[in-house]
Amino acid sequence: MSIKTNEFAALKNVKVKDGFWSKYEEIAKNVIIPYQWDAINDLVPDTEPSHAIKNFKIAAGEMEGEFRGFVFQDTDVAKWLEAVSYRLTIEPDEKLEKTADEVIDLIGRAQREDGYLDTYYLIKEKGKEFTNLLDCHEMYCAGHMAEAAVAYFEATGKRKLLDIVCRFLDLIAQRVGKEEGKIHGYSGHPEIELALVRVYKATGDKKYLDFCKYLIDERGCEPNFFQQELESRNFINMWGGKDKKADTVYCQAHKPLREQKEAVGHSVRAGYLYTGAAHLALELGDKELFNACETLWDNATKKQMYVTGGFGSQVHGEAFSFDYQLPNDLSYTETCAAISFVFFAQKMLMSDVDSKYSDVMERILYNGSISGMALDGKHFFYTNPLEVWDEQNKKVPAYRHNKVKRPGWFGCACCPPNLARMITSLGNYIYSTDENTVYAHLYIGSDAKLSVGESTVEIKQTSRMPWEGKSEFVLSGGEYTFAVRIPSWADKFEVKVNGEKVNCEVKKGYAYITKAWAQGDAVTVEMPMEVKLMEANPLVRADGGKVAISRGPVVYCIESADNGDRLSSIRLENEPMFRIEKDDELFEGSVSIFAKAVKKKAWETDDLYKAFTQSYEEITLKAIPYAFWGNRDDNREMAVWIRY
Amino acid sequence: MSIKTNEFAALKNVKVKDGFWSKYEEIAKNVIIPYQWDAINDLVPDTEPSHAIKNFKIAAGEMEGEFRGFVFQDTDVAKWLEAVSYRLTIEPDEKLEKTADEVIDLIGRAQREDGYLDTYYLIKEKGKEFTNLLDCHEMYCAGHMAEAAVAYFEATGKRKLLDIVCRFLDLIAQRVGKEEGKIHGYSGHPEIELALVRVYKATGDKKYLDFCKYLIDERGCEPNFFQQELESRNFINMWGGKDKKADTVYCQAHKPLREQKEAVGHSVRAGYLYTGAAHLALELGDKELFNACETLWDNATKKQMYVTGGFGSQVHGEAFSFDYQLPNDLSYTETCAAISFVFFAQKMLMSDVDSKYSDVMERILYNGSISGMALDGKHFFYTNPLEVWDEQNKKVPAYRHNKVKRPGWFGCACCPPNLARMITSLGNYIYSTDENTVYAHLYIGSDAKLSVGESTVEIKQTSRMPWEGKSEFVLSGGEYTFAVRIPSWADKFEVKVNGEKVNCEVKKGYAYITKAWAQGDAVTVEMPMEVKLMEANPLVRADGGKVAISRGPVVYCIESADNGDRLSSIRLENEPMFRIEKDDELFEGSVSIFAKAVKKKAWETDDLYKAFTQSYEEITLKAIPYAFWGNRDDNREMAVWIRY
Repeated sequence: MSIKTNEFAALKNVKVKDGFWSKYEEIAKNVIIPYQWDAINDLVPDTEPSHAIKNFKIAAGEMEGEFRGFVFQDTDVAKWLEAVSYRLTIEPDEKLEKTADEVIDLIGRAQREDGYLDTYYLIKEKGKEFTNLLDCHEMYCAGHMAEAAVAYFEATGKRKLLDIVCRFLDLIAQRVGKEEGKIHGYSGHPEIELALVRVYKATGDKKYLDFCKYLIDERGCEPNFFQQELESRNFINMWGGKDKKADTVYCQAHKPLREQKEAVGHSVRAGYLYTGAAHLALELGDKELFNACETLWDNATKKQMYVTGGFGSQVHGEAFSFDYQLPNDLSYTETCAAISFVFFAQKMLMSDVDSKYSDVMERILYNGSISGMALDGKHFFYTNPLEVWDEQNKKVPAYRHNKVKRPGWFGCACCPPNLARMITSLGNYIYSTDENTVYAHLYIGSDAKLSVGESTVEIKQTSRMPWEGKSEFVLSGGEYTFAVRIPSWADKFEVKVNGEKVNCEVKKGYAYITKAWAQGDAVTVEMPMEVKLMEANPLVRADGGKVAISRGPVVYCIESADNGDRLSSIRLENEPMFRIEKDDELFEGSVSIFAKAVKKKAWETDDLYKAFTQSYEEITLKAIPYAFWGNRDDNREMAVWIRY
Repeated sequence: MSIKTNEFAALKNVKVKDGFWSKYEEIAKNVIIPYQWDAINDLVPDTEPSHAIKNFKIAAGEMEGEFRGFVFQDTDVAKWLEAVSYRLTIEPDEKLEKTADEVIDLIGRAQREDGYLDTYYLIKEKGKEFTNLLDCHEMYCAGHMAEAAVAYFEATGKRKLLDIVCRFLDLIAQRVGKEEGKIHGYSGHPEIELALVRVYKATGDKKYLDFCKYLIDERGCEPNFFQQELESRNFINMWGGKDKKADTVYCQAHKPLREQKEAVGHSVRAGYLYTGAAHLALELGDKELFNACETLWDNATKKQMYVTGGFGSQVHGEAFSFDYQLPNDLSYTETCAAISFVFFAQKMLMSDVDSKYSDVMERILYNGSISGMALDGKHFFYTNPLEVWDEQNKKVPAYRHNKVKRPGWFGCACCPPNLARMITSLGNYIYSTDENTVYAHLYIGSDAKLSVGESTVEIKQTSRMPWEGKSEFVLSGGEYTFAVRIPSWADKFEVKVNGEKVNCEVKKGYAYITKAWAQGDAVTVEMPMEVKLMEANPLVRADGGKVAISRGPVVYCIESADNGDRLSSIRLENEPMFRIEKDDELFEGSVSIFAKAVKKKAWETDDLYKAFTQSYEEITLKAIPYAFWGNRDDNREMAVWIRY
């Protein structure tokens, strides 16, 4: 009994042509992917060498040397290959494909005869494979390589990497599993689960789905595998220290996923695990598992998500904390965690077309994900706080993970390539279809060719999002339902067909129009895009008395570069008289927001405390899209939440 | 050339008889001191044993066993003895004195023949004495024992403990010092410096002052001793781990004290070091050193002090952070740090009668020090945050050091005995005198007998502080100046002599009256005690848009026990219409404050964010003195700073 009701269009069938996202695609093509190539080849000056390609050369016996980098260093190569695959899907590039083929050949030569493929163990810890699933990321690496393999296969039709990966996956499934004699374990860092479903879809071989099911179901069962594994290693962790207890909450293995009600632990691990579980549930028609995923989705997005679409309230464990604990300056909100929830949302939508998923997807896309990248495509935030005070970040260790400027490519390089693959595969998130319906989930300008039942529907979307609330869909003829998301930020909306207003049924945030479409029929969706003050649920202590400025899907912030230091001294006036202005300084076509506000005057004495007096000056506050913050040299403070 | 202009009256000459403090004295007498005695003798059920007395018995060879506790466990015994000494000064107690004598005898028996006296090294690390001055607190322990010895000598005239201590100090000075062959070091945890000046004053032997001067002057010189010491230990610290660099900022040894401009590092270490340095400066007439102390005082109190008189913004290193960084929920604000600044203030006042010292002293006394103790005298806060959310403290490691209820006597027991000694020696902080002036620094009801030049002045102070702003001083006859502090919280004041208003000269916050006093002349000081909203300097980001309620010297807070959860949803109204009410629930004679406020209504939906709406309910806010917070079982939140 299938619970999957619709399927997303493949990337190759949806070409993004968008005023906003095409720029990011260009940056990915022209900057990030070449830059990442240089990075994994240690060609970026003044930056910690990645050593990722060298590790494969050493493992292949083609170079002398030691393993260097993190235990998951191989994934840098895998993620580059995955992004390249999406690039090649968008647009052929012979030279790029040749380079990728050479890397794949190298990976093949590094693979051990039995199929094993993780350079950390091939070089540094020979013989210790599968002895530390908790810390050592073997399956995480396999997962990323598998994602790259599927993407490359789909892009080029070339099976080589897929074959390499399948041999590795087969070896893993020989060693790890339910059966006697196998290790009854699973990965400390989930990722392989979501990859296994993709491999199953690409190969049609159900054993990959079965193995995925094993990994999801075994996780968190008692007696706890990670605790047993730790004991079997005499409590020694991978850093040589001793742990009394395995931190199973950190890696979401404290109880079976089906019993978990709250998002906990490392937020990237969580996002990947949930994505894999949701996809598995779809393929198996496992309603119970899907419901568990929905419970976790609801908890994460309704109680633990920042207004920017960020996840992970604390640096300790880079983790979720608990309901409504959302400090703005201490948040971890890793770029990768935000991205993982885009993946998760997409899976949920395939069974349940509900804007609660796609609204969050949109929120993440325009805010907490791309905030991770500087507009030069070469500098990246690992963490995306909602409030910074540069001096505090620099001088107080508790805040040190947050920066006021994006550093270059860095040691633990998970976020930049994750952004690259998200941006280059965006076409995969816009439309899904079922037997007779096209669902438009995102307002992103694009040309799409979609399968609806037996027929093909072509849609040309023109959109000025996120700056203007009007998008147009030009459809090809046929009888089908066109469903389009009405975002939760839109207080009003108007759907027109060929200029005529139509009343459509709205279900779970989607407007449905069923008719016999003539070739070239145009559906326009208009949503007035007003500046809006958002507030957080009063249970969020950190946002008490504060508002966030938003407009459409874009969350704004204020920076000291525009508003002077001491952003905490600023209070929006009761009638802020918002004014918007096109502002190309940071991003072409961007919109800045101006408002009436007051700012507490600096004191003339050096007192620390004194009797309260009203002493404000009137100012015109300038707010910019959060995603673009931290792009100016002279900026020392930033805040999303503003006193009101 | 002396820079000391006045001297505080000895404890034995000032008997506290005060509506507020006598209750604390009673608690110290009837609860804390007996409870501490039980604690150091491991007689408190359900609490981690202290083992402090046992360590001395083992060192004396009178018991088998191993050393247990912290490396500074001996100070628990020393601080108990010091508090007992002050108790005996206030009031003889034969039984208590006998117990103290027995403890002192035990300490004598534990002392090694060469004078060495630190049970950690006597039992656990024989032969390793003086090899780790950075971490191992030997001189810190000697300092506390020296303070106890001086106090006991002054209380009872008995020299035994003083002799024991002097032998230990002499041994330390043989091993540590400027001369060739000695260790050119100083203590990782300052304390001995302030104790050495006290020993000098008690014995008249200048060698103790000289050794103190060596310790202060050598500290922080290059090449840095702690770094050299660490290298000589092959970089191994006392926990067996390795440190590359000695954290010299943590212990204020990053540069010579005379060159330090900012309070840094562990806040208790800082307070003790500055106190010792200031006292040394007074005794040596060292103006340069005194000025350095003033610079540090100004930085700490004008840029890094909480409104409650708390110090130490961060848990990392239990330390100062930097100017104006004063987070309310992450603060460390250790009870001991607050107390150390009472000591420091007293020393500064001896050269410079300026209310900038005594105002802070008063602020600490009524707020951030006694907040460390539950009103049962048996439960103690180590840290005194200005804002708590119980669930956050429990679930998020970054906040875990802060609690919503005071635990019992705990493992690292520095704060409770520090409170005991502060409370029992309070008579020592009220008055100081010079040749012809009596300075009344604190409004604390008391009977005092003071030396003013050749004559003796008797003062009977009656005060209803901190609840009413009226105090009376009945003076004995003679020609002298009476100077009394006019607190900075008093916007107005009236000084009357025998009911007649007098205009007096006010210098640096003190009102001076010079006349020929007749026996029984009464000076009254009246200061209207109004409820006041305080604000922080706008450079304090954490307090932006917030006010603290105060009345007289008392800082108030709000608790969820009175105001419901979500204190961050509360905003004081523009016209708060304050009402005060006598409220004996927590403390007899206490005053609660009521005000008009609004509170954001709870949402009826489970949204996390939505468009801002005005939806407040009117409430009557209740505020209680900060010192009394956390004394009720059903309290989950507290806040000093309230939105306005």
